[in-house]
Amino acid sequence: MAGSSSLDALVQALRRLPGVGIKSAQRMAFHLLQHDREGARMLARALAQAADNIKHCELCHTFTESAICSTCLDERRDHSKLCVVETPADQSALERTAAYKGLYFVLMGKLSPLDGIGPKDIGLQKLFARATDGVVQEVILATNFTAEGEATAHVIGEALKSRGLQVTRLARGVPAGSELEYVDLGTIAHALVDRR
Amino acid sequence: MAGSSSLDALVQALRRLPGVGIKSAQRMAFHLLQHDREGARMLARALAQAADNIKHCELCHTFTESAICSTCLDERRDHSKLCVVETPADQSALERTAAYKGLYFVLMGKLSPLDGIGPKDIGLQKLFARATDGVVQEVILATNFTAEGEATAHVIGEALKSRGLQVTRLARGVPAGSELEYVDLGTIAHALVDRR
Ligand SMILES: [Zn+2]
Ligand SMILES: [Zn+2]
Repeated sequence: MAGSSSLDALVQALRRLPGVGIKSAQRMAFHLLQHDREGARMLARALAQAADNIKHCELCHTFTESAICSTCLDERRDHSKLCVVETPADQSALERTAAYKGLYFVLMGKLSPLDGIGPKDIGLQKLFARATDGVVQEVILATNFTAEGEATAHVIGEALKSRGLQVTRLARGVPAGSELEYVDLGTIAHALVDRR
Repeated sequence: MAGSSSLDALVQALRRLPGVGIKSAQRMAFHLLQHDREGARMLARALAQAADNIKHCELCHTFTESAICSTCLDERRDHSKLCVVETPADQSALERTAAYKGLYFVLMGKLSPLDGIGPKDIGLQKLFARATDGVVQEVILATNFTAEGEATAHVIGEALKSRGLQVTRLARGVPAGSELEYVDLGTIAHALVDRR
């Protein structure tokens, strides 16, 4: 857009958001300036506060504003179970099921050699130290069922088994509510193998 | 995501951006906090500065940080021509062609009765005053070739013709570089009618 350096700077900064190209950035800037300046100021404050205040939980590595997050501090949870997930959003999905009452370790990523993301980047040493604190008995691997998520689960599983821990993986199978006719064959094959 | 009010506030604020739902907002927040805190701070500053500094040009209504924008102040431009566009992005597209050296009026929207956007919201009185300053001879309607853009052009055109101005519209026709076989029939029909 023409002739305003504040506007150009805003469009460029919006492009730092994942999945936002030049057209989307222009559309976002136009919308905020023309229709929602209060939204622009609210987002500015939220970004600055989050960037300043949010750090990683010393125990589970998720985002938190304290040294240790509220989940890790919750005494009613089962501290003998540790569920390993890729992201806070995955943790949030598991929490919404209300089917798990143990603790978490959030990798904040997954092993991805092609993107140069190795064991250090997802804090595997921290995870191994955390899982061998003497209290944790079972580690549940809940990384995604993608190639990289499976590889990450495999690496963590092997390392923890060799340290004498019980390691389990979320079951693969047919999604609840689905008709077999429309489920992909790989999923049905896994459901057969993992039948109980 | 669990347990951080700064994080929840950030996700909610990101949803104020057009086209951003809860999943995208979570993905954006995760990316900025995990991989690009400098980007988060840069975006915070850009938003606050733009919201505080950007106003509308008194002559053409586009975004600017001064009372009158640099385009309107440019003495080398042809002040007898006024091109009406919907948004700064449309103006920018026309500028990139380098085929137009007149001035602009930016509606910052289009007539859209269903969304409650009427003549006042797109500054039609300002446009009529601007176009009848005695210097402007020709008004070029360059609103989009959508139903609402066409309706907006029609309303403006009728009003300005009745005030004795020469009013033209961007030509409709076959896009440069296209093969007729793949051009939609309405476009070909318009290109026939507007043949020269
Ligand atoms: Zn924690
Ligand atoms: Zn101007």
